[in-house]
Amino acid sequence: MADPAVRKAPPPPPIDGNHSKVIRFLEGFQWKDVIKEDYKADSDSWKGITRRELAGKRGESVKFHVRYFEIEPGGYSTLEKHEHEHVVIPMRGTGEAQAGCYIWKVSFGDVVYVSPSEPHQFRCPDDAKEPFGFLCVVNAERDRPQAVDGLGVCHICE
Amino acid sequence: MADPAVRKAPPPPPIDGNHSKVIRFLEGFQWKDVIKEDYKADSDSWKGITRRELAGKRGESVKFHVRYFEIEPGGYSTLEKHEHEHVVIPMRGTGEAQAGCYIWKVSFGDVVYVSPSEPHQFRCPDDAKEPFGFLCVVNAERDRPQAVDGLGVCHICE
Repeated sequence: MADPAVRKAPPPPPIDGNHSKVIRFLEGFQWKDVIKEDYKADSDSWKGITRRELAGKRGESVKFHVRYFEIEPGGYSTLEKHEHEHVVIPMRGTGEAQAGCYIWKVSFGDVVYVSPSEPHQFRCPDDAKEPFGFLCVVNAERDRPQAVDGLGVCHICE
Repeated sequence: MADPAVRKAPPPPPIDGNHSKVIRFLEGFQWKDVIKEDYKADSDSWKGITRRELAGKRGESVKFHVRYFEIEPGGYSTLEKHEHEHVVIPMRGTGEAQAGCYIWKVSFGDVVYVSPSEPHQFRCPDDAKEPFGFLCVVNAERDRPQAVDGLGVCHICE
């Protein structure tokens, strides 16, 4: 008979639900039980970019969502704008972040803030040796993006 | 006279304000112009832990805050609980995350979710070779933590 004084380790909690849990990082920037999804289901306004939902979409009650996006060399996100903000933190490789008339080369640990209604795009250079991967945090309640034709001229450099 | 067709790069935006910006990651897990703060101003319920505010406290309109905490070997956060949730993503070293009766060893890229009112603590082992550093995302509007005496017995292992 098992010694009742020896407490058994609890079973690991399921990935879905509003309870404490750990989602394990795996080699090659994957996470256990987290599927790789298309960046967007519709439109041909983007290229070579995937999405992984890390927090906020599996029953967690947070008012924000944390996603991991990864862009292949030569790929890019939709050039778009929306009322909600982005906080982007690169985790893998090097890429370009454009917001309004700013273009920043960004890599591990940089913190990119895209303000409301600012046209923006994320890109991985053609000659990059590895994908450009980043965390992106957004408000859970948010408006839909609108594609834009060009970044235009902003108040800074017009 | 400067060629008007050559557009000047805009000046870097200031770190404060609700405009697009990049906060640069620097060697040694520091960020340009971001001060290192005490984890908490009050109490002796914690040891060897610092905080850096990365997004949400400098005029950004997001409904969440992103912080970087770093715990020295032998250090720990307050054992506490609160209604608001944590999403924690380790960036440096290895540490322990405890939530309720779960203790997880966590390192780069793992995603820790602490659910509402779950007693929890983050620790860096005494024999760690480097600090344990992690991103922590929380709702911008949140309740104050309450220190707890012990993790108690939860519904899983009681």
